[in-house]
Amino acid sequence: MTTTAHGTSALLSVGDELTLGQTLDTNSRWIAEALRDLGVMTVEHVTVPDDLAAHAGTLRRLASKVDLIVSTGGLGPTADDLTRQALAGAMGEKLIEDEVSLAQVRAWFTGRGREMPAINAVQALRPASAMALRNLHGTAPGLKACLGACDVFCLPGPPGEARPMWASCVVPRLRPPPGRTVRTRVLHTFGIGESDLATRLGALMARDRSPLVGTTASGGVVSCRLRYEGPLTPEDADALLASTAREVRGLAGEFVFGEGDATLPDAVLALARAAGQMVGVVESCTGGMLGQMLTEPAGASRVFMGGLLTYSNSMKTALAAVDPTLLAEGGPGAVSEETALAMARGGLERLGVDHCLAVTGIAGPGGGSAIKPVGTVWIALASRGGGADVRRFRMSGARGAIRDWACKAALAMLWQRLTGVGAVKLLRQEQP
Amino acid sequence: MTTTAHGTSALLSVGDELTLGQTLDTNSRWIAEALRDLGVMTVEHVTVPDDLAAHAGTLRRLASKVDLIVSTGGLGPTADDLTRQALAGAMGEKLIEDEVSLAQVRAWFTGRGREMPAINAVQALRPASAMALRNLHGTAPGLKACLGACDVFCLPGPPGEARPMWASCVVPRLRPPPGRTVRTRVLHTFGIGESDLATRLGALMARDRSPLVGTTASGGVVSCRLRYEGPLTPEDADALLASTAREVRGLAGEFVFGEGDATLPDAVLALARAAGQMVGVVESCTGGMLGQMLTEPAGASRVFMGGLLTYSNSMKTALAAVDPTLLAEGGPGAVSEETALAMARGGLERLGVDHCLAVTGIAGPGGGSAIKPVGTVWIALASRGGGADVRRFRMSGARGAIRDWACKAALAMLWQRLTGVGAVKLLRQEQP
Repeated sequence: MTTTAHGTSALLSVGDELTLGQTLDTNSRWIAEALRDLGVMTVEHVTVPDDLAAHAGTLRRLASKVDLIVSTGGLGPTADDLTRQALAGAMGEKLIEDEVSLAQVRAWFTGRGREMPAINAVQALRPASAMALRNLHGTAPGLKACLGACDVFCLPGPPGEARPMWASCVVPRLRPPPGRTVRTRVLHTFGIGESDLATRLGALMARDRSPLVGTTASGGVVSCRLRYEGPLTPEDADALLASTAREVRGLAGEFVFGEGDATLPDAVLALARAAGQMVGVVESCTGGMLGQMLTEPAGASRVFMGGLLTYSNSMKTALAAVDPTLLAEGGPGAVSEETALAMARGGLERLGVDHCLAVTGIAGPGGGSAIKPVGTVWIALASRGGGADVRRFRMSGARGAIRDWACKAALAMLWQRLTGVGAVKLLRQEQP
Repeated sequence: MTTTAHGTSALLSVGDELTLGQTLDTNSRWIAEALRDLGVMTVEHVTVPDDLAAHAGTLRRLASKVDLIVSTGGLGPTADDLTRQALAGAMGEKLIEDEVSLAQVRAWFTGRGREMPAINAVQALRPASAMALRNLHGTAPGLKACLGACDVFCLPGPPGEARPMWASCVVPRLRPPPGRTVRTRVLHTFGIGESDLATRLGALMARDRSPLVGTTASGGVVSCRLRYEGPLTPEDADALLASTAREVRGLAGEFVFGEGDATLPDAVLALARAAGQMVGVVESCTGGMLGQMLTEPAGASRVFMGGLLTYSNSMKTALAAVDPTLLAEGGPGAVSEETALAMARGGLERLGVDHCLAVTGIAGPGGGSAIKPVGTVWIALASRGGGADVRRFRMSGARGAIRDWACKAALAMLWQRLTGVGAVKLLRQEQP
């Protein structure tokens, strides 16, 4: 081991199946997250194919810029597993056989009543000055080496092997920079665009501010990420994050539905549960997606009663008691304020719930018209003893994105009612 | 554009949320796969943070070793979106405003009844010699530039924007190396395990065979990938793939529900449409997911009539006419053969369909018992003028995986009925 602190790290993933897109690399994400929480900043991820020169060259390049490299993959027994050779090449060392490793690999097989295939002996090789890391969940030992002033850890690719070795062999040997604390916090919004949120946050998003505030958007949810990095104690850093989080809520609180792992369904279910109220749905264009979202969290049965999938017009009438004249020639039609309201009110009665959401729209790609283009969605919320809330949206994107957004907008309407923030206009909602 | 062929490529993903492990990069996988199918070999993936110097330096380094760079991310409107500046820096050019882009970004907002926030104007900037790529699904235009002899395409990070731009703006401008034919074909199965499929395929999966045959499993669907790479004409390569595909169907045809982009819902909807039959669902533990899957494909309304979400016991009785004694103390209970059958038969009547699928089970994590552990799912299919098919499954994994598998098993049962292969036992189905 070198003795400098591990301030910065780079992650290296190895394998043709990764560079060619047959397999999705999931190791780099959790390793980067774990390093960040320890105070080590990952500044680059690289994926290289099973190519000795490219692999060794990348190790040398990364070693010259970071304090720590964690690599995954390329430690198997076959001819295309080149991590041992690439590391030795980058170090300018020969590979030697590690007797302890060899005994462990052999014991892996004999413990399962098999003889070690001859090809597995290569897994016990290591660069002369490197150290082998024991793998209790597979045959591939890991490696720990110094490449100049950079510490290098090589783990096998399968997450089921890499994760336990990360915890047992890497974490105890890490040296996060002393006196540097890294703490993060994330707030999720729905219904406000990323640029509008940034405009509201204003100076909070300055790149030289601490804690740093950034936004990311995914599937309509715009998340506000807070990160502190500095000399404070973890407790003081958390207090600073809490203060910034309060500022964010002060500027955009009517859109902040949750923090951390919380989803929009989680937020709605928690509020309804706390109020002791039951929820139902009547779905047309979303075909069940809204019910599916509401039943994704465990324990949904305490809040979600059931629903009606009224995909066809005849079902709107038969199941949700929608007046057939609304759907007949000359009426407002299936995608209209009147029908959305009738669906929500019909569902409230038929399902015997406290709140019923109804969604009817044109998800496309066909079925649009000049007056009701693809993406037109009406959403209604009827509540026992409360007025109805009905809104028109113009969603964009492909069929799946329109349906997903429609369900989230419906959930946001129910969230607004349950929190009492009122009928705040949502992104993609049109003027009445 | 340069004029050399695109023999090798590198993929660049941009963003602190990626390097720090807050978000999993999924773009690089599908872009690498799409490039490979076109004959362009990806030799490196890199992820860099929102850091101008690191970003520009990486662009220069990659441009010196590959013919093509595809980057995703960093094209948003906020201060930490640095792809435009990094590209200009690497090219040694200034950023100029692209009038057409600016009009398009503005139109994106005005088309939604909003004024363009001032900060979005930066999205219309491009390096002087670069070209803006139109984004029809978001505000961020892409960029196309030359960095020495290397062609660079920059796409926005959200896959819903990057994918359509990849198809419309990048693929038409690619120049795969001449004289090398790469053709692929993929057959999808459901209900057979990956090792069982491999055993059936036997010598077809030899690594030195051409076309190469491999299997990948994702979400219960085991896909059989055929790939030809060599000197044949595309037509001859396709003929060879067709012959191998016939061999695969000969060995495992009763599980092959489709090819290419076809999903299980696609396959079921196509068969029902051809037969002029309507389908409905009655869902308990899946809460709408089965209806959502059946309405994912466009045109589902010609087959999918509607459904009942009978999440609570009272709804099973009220909506699907399930005999309350089945659900009462001492009865077989909500998760039982009798209740599944009653749900399917009740739905067949109430919905007036030709086929009705019913799902009732314990998705967990709570609610299991020694006799009915988490993962126990009963699925019934009732058909007008046909017998009922009811099966018990033992699903494994987390709540989401159990629900997903239950829906797919239900679709597979309907697929078997519609194709007439009979009630072939599915993976995870238990003996009666």
